[in-house]
Amino acid sequence: MKYISIILITLLLSCQNSVNTMSAKEDILKVLMSQQNAWNEGDIDGYMQGYLKSDSLRFASGGNISYGWQNTFERYAAGYPDRNTMGLLTFSEIDISIISDDSALVFGKWELERSSDHPWGLFTLILKKTPEGWRIVHDHTSSAK
Amino acid sequence: MKYISIILITLLLSCQNSVNTMSAKEDILKVLMSQQNAWNEGDIDGYMQGYLKSDSLRFASGGNISYGWQNTFERYAAGYPDRNTMGLLTFSEIDISIISDDSALVFGKWELERSSDHPWGLFTLILKKTPEGWRIVHDHTSSAK
Repeated sequence: MKYISIILITLLLSCQNSVNTMSAKEDILKVLMSQQNAWNEGDIDGYMQGYLKSDSLRFASGGNISYGWQNTFERYAAGYPDRNTMGLLTFSEIDISIISDDSALVFGKWELERSSDHPWGLFTLILKKTPEGWRIVHDHTSSAK
Repeated sequence: MKYISIILITLLLSCQNSVNTMSAKEDILKVLMSQQNAWNEGDIDGYMQGYLKSDSLRFASGGNISYGWQNTFERYAAGYPDRNTMGLLTFSEIDISIISDDSALVFGKWELERSSDHPWGLFTLILKKTPEGWRIVHDHTSSAK
């Protein structure tokens, strides 16, 4: 009887872990989809809500690094001054790995459909679980040549 | 007396955690330095020892993704067929964050000094602690334009 209880508790905990992981992955996917939707409504501030509002936020792209939410926001705002340059953003091939209770790795592909071109590339994100939800703390983006 | 014991144990555990984190960071730095040294001796196989020997290894660069140790090795071997193309590799501005007992994030800058050019860029690595030591399981590299 004692062993059956141990097995049942182990199964229950393992099941609980799977449910927690699935729930975390869903929450993270929602953050990314909110970013994509905000971008496609021309709302860079809304897009930026997926990032941790902290000076420790790190955003790397090509050979450039921005530190801090405000700098990253300003860089986006300067680089994408209107709907035309923003284009239509799509995230795809998203792969989410939960690293610990409050850390996750996300890898995926980004693309912009614009009237003049169709840039795309890959991204690696590290997210942390905060009281406000999962937020990106590190973003490394690369462009296909 | 009871409270003093609790405080002492808490301090001891906190100190032990700091020591563990420092030791993990040192171990990870050694892996990266071994890679750099192997590269600069023209030893791509030695360089590749820093990567997890698994089909799950993911290597992203620009818009390209390689999966698996063997594919990544072959890509390096094809891209850098001799000492001249390999050049002199330097990793710098290395920032290591221990995410959990067996996971770490590393961010840094890479550069190659070659007779004809001086390419450089940034890298984001995820390492896992394995019985053989810390190994890279995810590498996202970008080039400065």
